[in-house]
Amino acid sequence: MYAVIFKAEIAKLDDEYSATAARMQELALNQYGCFEFSACCEGNQEIAISYWPSQDHIKRWRQDPEHLLAQKSGQGKWYHSYTVQVVEVLREYSH
Amino acid sequence: MYAVIFKAEIAKLDDEYSATAARMQELALNQYGCFEFSACCEGNQEIAISYWPSQDHIKRWRQDPEHLLAQKSGQGKWYHSYTVQVVEVLREYSH
Repeated sequence: MYAVIFKAEIAKLDDEYSATAARMQELALNQYGCFEFSACCEGNQEIAISYWPSQDHIKRWRQDPEHLLAQKSGQGKWYHSYTVQVVEVLREYSH
Repeated sequence: MYAVIFKAEIAKLDDEYSATAARMQELALNQYGCFEFSACCEGNQEIAISYWPSQDHIKRWRQDPEHLLAQKSGQGKWYHSYTVQVVEVLREYSH
């Protein structure tokens, strides 16, 4: 199992952001094989983690045309900076 | 590089939680080789990600006596449930 960790310093979020974020989550989950999405905002910080069956799924998602537009808006308007990390889940436990 | 993703559903956080969270972060960073810590709370959800040079560092941290006590308090008082995932960072990019 693979995951993408997205960590951002928020510049300014607007209504378009909320609609885009919801649309991206829907697209990833329904058309690109993402099977879990967790996100959290506090102050000017955002952390979002999405989970994927393979690195190929992640590559395809990264190239989705709507997602590419969202990335441009993220870079130009919503975020001062962000980091994306592709990770492999080695083990997990719950309580 | 390795990371630990901690995702929790918060039950009730108190002053002891804040002190413990700060102490755990300090211990991890100063005595166990953790080199980055990002955390975010929104509503009853918490996401925290810590970064480590090796899986051995993570194992040692998991067994720290103060950390074991904090884990017990987390299970008994502060969290309804939580998930811990140990991951390997395969690649990253920033904007």
